[in-house]
Amino acid sequence: MSYGLKIRDKGALDFLSLGALVHRLDPGIIPFRKATHCQIHVGGGEFNVAANLADCFGLDTGIATAMVNYPIGDLVTERVKAMGVKPFYKRFEHNGVTGPNIAAVYSDQGHGVRAPVVFYNRANEAGAQLKPGDFDWNAIFAGGVRWFHSGGIFAALSETTAELIIEGMQAAKAAGAVVSFDLNFREKLWKISGGQNRAVSVIARIVKNVDVLVGNEEDLQKGLGIPGPEVAAKSKLDPSAFFGMIDRVIEKHPQIKIVATTLREVHMTNRHNWGAVAWVNGKTHVAPTCELHVLDRVGGGDGFAAGFFYGC
Amino acid sequence: MSYGLKIRDKGALDFLSLGALVHRLDPGIIPFRKATHCQIHVGGGEFNVAANLADCFGLDTGIATAMVNYPIGDLVTERVKAMGVKPFYKRFEHNGVTGPNIAAVYSDQGHGVRAPVVFYNRANEAGAQLKPGDFDWNAIFAGGVRWFHSGGIFAALSETTAELIIEGMQAAKAAGAVVSFDLNFREKLWKISGGQNRAVSVIARIVKNVDVLVGNEEDLQKGLGIPGPEVAAKSKLDPSAFFGMIDRVIEKHPQIKIVATTLREVHMTNRHNWGAVAWVNGKTHVAPTCELHVLDRVGGGDGFAAGFFYGC
Amino acid sequence: MSYGLKIRDKGALDFLSLGALVHRLDPGIIPFRKATHCQIHVGGGEFNVAANLADCFGLDTGIATAMVNYPIGDLVTERVKAMGVKPFYKRFEHNGVTGPNIAAVYSDQGHGVRAPVVFYNRANEAGAQLKPGDFDWNAIFAGGVRWFHSGGIFAALSETTAELIIEGMQAAKAAGAVVSFDLNFREKLWKISGGQNRAVSVIARIVKNVDVLVGNEEDLQKGLGIPGPEVAAKSKLDPSAFFGMIDRVIEKHPQIKIVATTLREVHMTNRHNWGAVAWVNGKTHVAPTCELHVLDRVGGGDGFAAGFFYGC
Amino acid sequence: MSYGLKIRDKGALDFLSLGALVHRLDPGIIPFRKATHCQIHVGGGEFNVAANLADCFGLDTGIATAMVNYPIGDLVTERVKAMGVKPFYKRFEHNGVTGPNIAAVYSDQGHGVRAPVVFYNRANEAGAQLKPGDFDWNAIFAGGVRWFHSGGIFAALSETTAELIIEGMQAAKAAGAVVSFDLNFREKLWKISGGQNRAVSVIARIVKNVDVLVGNEEDLQKGLGIPGPEVAAKSKLDPSAFFGMIDRVIEKHPQIKIVATTLREVHMTNRHNWGAVAWVNGKTHVAPTCELHVLDRVGGGDGFAAGFFYGC
Amino acid sequence: MSYGLKIRDKGALDFLSLGALVHRLDPGIIPFRKATHCQIHVGGGEFNVAANLADCFGLDTGIATAMVNYPIGDLVTERVKAMGVKPFYKRFEHNGVTGPNIAAVYSDQGHGVRAPVVFYNRANEAGAQLKPGDFDWNAIFAGGVRWFHSGGIFAALSETTAELIIEGMQAAKAAGAVVSFDLNFREKLWKISGGQNRAVSVIARIVKNVDVLVGNEEDLQKGLGIPGPEVAAKSKLDPSAFFGMIDRVIEKHPQIKIVATTLREVHMTNRHNWGAVAWVNGKTHVAPTCELHVLDRVGGGDGFAAGFFYGC
Amino acid sequence: MSYGLKIRDKGALDFLSLGALVHRLDPGIIPFRKATHCQIHVGGGEFNVAANLADCFGLDTGIATAMVNYPIGDLVTERVKAMGVKPFYKRFEHNGVTGPNIAAVYSDQGHGVRAPVVFYNRANEAGAQLKPGDFDWNAIFAGGVRWFHSGGIFAALSETTAELIIEGMQAAKAAGAVVSFDLNFREKLWKISGGQNRAVSVIARIVKNVDVLVGNEEDLQKGLGIPGPEVAAKSKLDPSAFFGMIDRVIEKHPQIKIVATTLREVHMTNRHNWGAVAWVNGKTHVAPTCELHVLDRVGGGDGFAAGFFYGC
Repeated sequence: MSYGLKIRDKGALDFLSLGALVHRLDPGIIPFRKATHCQIHVGGGEFNVAANLADCFGLDTGIATAMVNYPIGDLVTERVKAMGVKPFYKRFEHNGVTGPNIAAVYSDQGHGVRAPVVFYNRANEAGAQLKPGDFDWNAIFAGGVRWFHSGGIFAALSETTAELIIEGMQAAKAAGAVVSFDLNFREKLWKISGGQNRAVSVIARIVKNVDVLVGNEEDLQKGLGIPGPEVAAKSKLDPSAFFGMIDRVIEKHPQIKIVATTLREVHMTNRHNWGAVAWVNGKTHVAPTCELHVLDRVGGGDGFAAGFFYGC
Repeated sequence: MSYGLKIRDKGALDFLSLGALVHRLDPGIIPFRKATHCQIHVGGGEFNVAANLADCFGLDTGIATAMVNYPIGDLVTERVKAMGVKPFYKRFEHNGVTGPNIAAVYSDQGHGVRAPVVFYNRANEAGAQLKPGDFDWNAIFAGGVRWFHSGGIFAALSETTAELIIEGMQAAKAAGAVVSFDLNFREKLWKISGGQNRAVSVIARIVKNVDVLVGNEEDLQKGLGIPGPEVAAKSKLDPSAFFGMIDRVIEKHPQIKIVATTLREVHMTNRHNWGAVAWVNGKTHVAPTCELHVLDRVGGGDGFAAGFFYGC
Repeated sequence: MSYGLKIRDKGALDFLSLGALVHRLDPGIIPFRKATHCQIHVGGGEFNVAANLADCFGLDTGIATAMVNYPIGDLVTERVKAMGVKPFYKRFEHNGVTGPNIAAVYSDQGHGVRAPVVFYNRANEAGAQLKPGDFDWNAIFAGGVRWFHSGGIFAALSETTAELIIEGMQAAKAAGAVVSFDLNFREKLWKISGGQNRAVSVIARIVKNVDVLVGNEEDLQKGLGIPGPEVAAKSKLDPSAFFGMIDRVIEKHPQIKIVATTLREVHMTNRHNWGAVAWVNGKTHVAPTCELHVLDRVGGGDGFAAGFFYGC
Repeated sequence: MSYGLKIRDKGALDFLSLGALVHRLDPGIIPFRKATHCQIHVGGGEFNVAANLADCFGLDTGIATAMVNYPIGDLVTERVKAMGVKPFYKRFEHNGVTGPNIAAVYSDQGHGVRAPVVFYNRANEAGAQLKPGDFDWNAIFAGGVRWFHSGGIFAALSETTAELIIEGMQAAKAAGAVVSFDLNFREKLWKISGGQNRAVSVIARIVKNVDVLVGNEEDLQKGLGIPGPEVAAKSKLDPSAFFGMIDRVIEKHPQIKIVATTLREVHMTNRHNWGAVAWVNGKTHVAPTCELHVLDRVGGGDGFAAGFFYGC
Repeated sequence: MSYGLKIRDKGALDFLSLGALVHRLDPGIIPFRKATHCQIHVGGGEFNVAANLADCFGLDTGIATAMVNYPIGDLVTERVKAMGVKPFYKRFEHNGVTGPNIAAVYSDQGHGVRAPVVFYNRANEAGAQLKPGDFDWNAIFAGGVRWFHSGGIFAALSETTAELIIEGMQAAKAAGAVVSFDLNFREKLWKISGGQNRAVSVIARIVKNVDVLVGNEEDLQKGLGIPGPEVAAKSKLDPSAFFGMIDRVIEKHPQIKIVATTLREVHMTNRHNWGAVAWVNGKTHVAPTCELHVLDRVGGGDGFAAGFFYGC
Repeated sequence: MSYGLKIRDKGALDFLSLGALVHRLDPGIIPFRKATHCQIHVGGGEFNVAANLADCFGLDTGIATAMVNYPIGDLVTERVKAMGVKPFYKRFEHNGVTGPNIAAVYSDQGHGVRAPVVFYNRANEAGAQLKPGDFDWNAIFAGGVRWFHSGGIFAALSETTAELIIEGMQAAKAAGAVVSFDLNFREKLWKISGGQNRAVSVIARIVKNVDVLVGNEEDLQKGLGIPGPEVAAKSKLDPSAFFGMIDRVIEKHPQIKIVATTLREVHMTNRHNWGAVAWVNGKTHVAPTCELHVLDRVGGGDGFAAGFFYGC
């Protein structure tokens, strides 16, 4: 790992994520309106990066998150263990009726010309109640943590989660960890926690602490409030729009060393072309385009982030 | 139909229920903590009675309930149509994130010595927001409704649902319908809407409007605040405890014509003995005991209520 | 709705189909010769249009059809209810052994270079016994019906079904409904009910009553007996052959306002290019071509008809 | 093998059945009215005996039956091969629409207090068209056949099947084979082929050729026209009623050496007690009762016949 | 924990098992000869105890075992993580063709009167190659281990596994851990590694190091070479035969504090009565009998051992 | 059949393969490391050709192979019967623990950019123990066999299997059968039975007896030790490299009449372009390229061989 980043050589953890875990209900190619059964997956934008780094790349990773004492919590706990991610849980008791809950993400896989549909039941979500002070960062960072990560989904859950991210990033910095953030801008989520104006102001405060930023053109526009390019790109795989916005990002946040994102052209729900681009310490990089047969696109960006971080 | 009840000969609807619809996630014999997939059922204690009367007995039935405009709402809508129940929906818009939601009931089927487990995510449930004035009872009862039903689960959802039940029962009475109520006392639910003291006082106000009451010994104790028998019954199938409490019920609510319940002895999760008892206008009736191979016990009481009402 | 059609503004039903319901046994991508299980779907070329208009577009639709009192009839009945289509059933009793039956359609989904295979068990099909006089058209049309539809599959089932279609169309006309017919020419079916000569003569008598005709080049040739173009089209997506035959259609049946069809190029069983063309009151229209990832092509033409009618 | 029977020592086939093959659609514990998918099994009362003797007991067995050239025929053909039964097929061509068909048996598995339900689509069944002269018995029996079997289901399919059974039995006798017949009396089937009077007269002509007869008390009453016992047996497992009727059977058909049947007491769909009884050359035998956990009762009697014949 | 055992108060691990992991192929109620698919489970007699103690009882447990670098090894690794058991792996490379392998256990679930069938492919099993010196016991016991366990299945795999068990037990004793051993006598396994004479002599050397012994009457006879009772017990649930043999066990191995086992009466594959008995420091204990609805009996004894140890 | 081959007009068998049968465990698109269940298929490179010729083309085919008396052997036996292939089994007894085994092939289907993975458990495989003298070739060829086939997978299993192939081919020649061999070079297999040098020398001795050789460019290089082309082909579908090597093949083995292979370009795991080429008695043939939607590529080459032989 290099590229302008100063990554510790060793640590009890190679990577620590802060975010909320969810259970996803997935009826496959059947839309929910016609579904009679579904698979139950466990994920979370921030967790997925830690899980991929542990399960695919063999790193020692951890997740700081909320856990609820009820059977869905147990289900989630098992998946976290199975992926080999070390948990740091702030625990909540479930009242059997209204929570606090592990949030449910309802998401099918789409088919052909029908795109996947995603909606949530995040009412009374335990993760949204996480707040500064909930984790003992000193203890967590004591053995050494090489990289700290969080993202825009967790930031949007409530007023306190954004503050917790900042607290965590500052502790991480103090402990010598690289800090990354995936903008993952979700308009629906920010709408329930203050709207876009608050989003831009909160994200700006977060990004001040960040070395590595992940986000596409739209994330940069909506999350950082940076105006988009004047001329539309000819293709979704054309990196010029993305690179054209980087100067403004660095101007605002000069401590950032790396900005990266995927570029995706969706032919059909199950057939995409993917590219990836990165701005690294002033140099631009473009990955060759790859044709993908997509089984399920959910979490694809998190997979990119994991692979990208691993290569840093 | 007779037994002291004056049931209208004809009506556009034979039966109308008021209650909340839910989607149930059911991993079968696997407990949730180890589940990787589940079936999605649609139900609701009050709806189930209407659905059984339509689907099994061919009656014209309806349901007054909350409906949310999102894919889970569409899923529920299709099941209501498939069961042949006429819907009267008060509609809500989903914000994509926190609701209002169609509540989720998580419930496995248990196995052998392991009983089924039931817990909810009823946070920000649309049904709990239903309140007096939400339905145009005049229009609903205009064509004639022969029987009106609600139950203790819906009553416990919020302060407004109990008031809506009373409003609906009074409209039903005025329109000449028989009125029934299934106590279905759920301690967990009442705990979140005022506790047992409020439960007893609210249920008392509801039961004042009731001709036919469904509830077992425990329901009568906790829901009506009637003390239990001094001596424990020898067997769960022994009706004496139940009958011993009826005098107190009738003393409090002399307009009641019928009180009925099932008696169940659970040998294993999948093997029960069931009986049923009824007090009808002063006479007691005991059904022969039946050995059941139980696939899934959820909704068993609602099935009893449907069959019992059909025979009235 | 316009385009030369005079569509009633209101009606108890927006759309009424006349046809036979079937249960389809579908082993998915496994051909029947190797199948060990299958899904059971409910459909019917004429019903599918009514079901799509109700389920996808929210119209009030109905189906006039045969229903048999046995468990497969109950299965079909539930699906009709779930799709929200109002049934008008002529009822038959099943003798437990030979029928009359709800017909079975055996149809897999094919895979890659292997096309789907369709064959029937329509022996002693209840639908084929439907005949003039079986439905009380006065009662059915009393509340107003805006559009009446039937098709070539039902017409081919027996001598009486074609006569029933004509009876229904005349009643529809008299009641002010637009009348449509999907030629859906199936050589196998006509072979068992009189052969192609009878087909042409019967269909001609039906089409005399039609405002909107659905059918591709082959349907027009075989169903209407109109000679095909002298030069083969370069591509299956080239509309010139279809348009070249319209003059002859209108010459024969000058009351027709609209003729429409899909154009399909099948690359593999699961990858098609689809276009669509229409002749509307003398003008020709060509839809842009769309690449489809096809899960199951059965009923695709019925889906087109539903969407096309909805746009009229 | 002995017990009064003269069984050939050797033969190209140990056992040959004559009957119709069916494909069974089985939705498991879900009744058809609520089913969305089903398993496809291959069977037939007469075939099942040959299949069990080959697959479980390793005998060389054959089946003389109708086969139809279409995918369901191919499916059935593979199962016959997989069971190791040598086929003698009279072949029919399918017209794609109405047959002749391999019959469909619709049969769920029931559950608890709900018994399995069986109904057919035997319209235009190829098997019913089998008639004397369809098989070259000389060729079939040329290599030696030790035992010939048929049954009451095949006998009831049409006028010609019963005659074919008699022809086959006479050829078998002439070739030195033991002849058995399972009465398997199905009232629904006989109703469509002449009613019970014809049944008794036809079965009498068949049974004249039989050495080993399988049938319970009801089969003997309805199939052979022998009056039942005057006093009802105390239990379904009490063999006295069965034995009480044997004298009348032997009186009518003195050439019979063996009569056997199962005795079954059904506690629940999935829990039976089974016994078995046999009258062998004047002596009576009673098997110990066995408690069975029944997965699927269909074909249970055929399994008994196979095991019983094997022990002869 | 007490009962004559001196269990350490604390330790990095509450429990450590030594044994081989397997992947089990399970076709459910279908026997393998008719199976077309199966589930893949991960287990192992010794591992199961550690897994239950971690997953059900929340203890910190570990497993010392062989691991192979190939996809089945990865599959097994994930399950070990998911159960929360800390692995100590001696690693082997797979040659892609013949191993060394993670052994396969083929085992269906049986049904009714058909018992489950178990057979193995343990050819070139990695676990059988484990030998003294493969684990660094000093490092493993450094943090404190409260209880060490192994069993008769692992002991029977090869000459070296038994020696490894003795080495491990001696290291455990030296480190202050309680030592247990489950005889789990499998005749088939011992036959391939020296026969019963070797079994008795090897097991005797193992049991010299044991505080807690698990094994039923047959295990004691065949594994320890102790003669059975002269009079057969009236019932499989009668503990007298088991208790009658304990004196001889203690005579041979006076250091043993506890001997325990289950007593099982199998009515049908899916319905058992279970009891349990224990001799604890000279006193006998008999658990009440419990009727079980058994889904899958494999590993039932390991579940007992886990619960029993937890209660010590 | 012609093309320089002298194929007998008639024979009891059209085709006889010699090879090992395997059971394949197939988790579908899920890789084994994440699999929880799998399908069980039966196959074998040499058997597959015989199975396709029987099942798809209706020929009379046979397989000479090892069979093991245990449930997996029974499972395999049923599939051989179902495919209509006549078995000639050399039988082995299974010891319940280590074999001899029917080998297991673990093989998923891959997805998108992830290729299928194949690995084996062939430890103590019964097939590898087959040796000259195990089959009574005189008896097998007595009724006439038109074509004899074996392949490189079986040749690589052990020292004795290659010798058995030679013995079989010589017997086939003597009996007038055409002899074919599919090189199917698998480096992993040869590594465990003597390495590539032994492979080349053994295969040379086998190919001396061959009329029809199947193998691609890589097979010819590695299996026959013929150097590859100096210039890499532009495309995997370009036949020039393959044809460029044929002279050297014929020089070494002038009795060969036909050499054929598929050419495959893999775009994604599920989308291939396939061509095929053949050198027939001095003339070259190239089949048109075909775009395939591949469900499962395992055995694709065997399918080609079957179709190609059928056309000879």
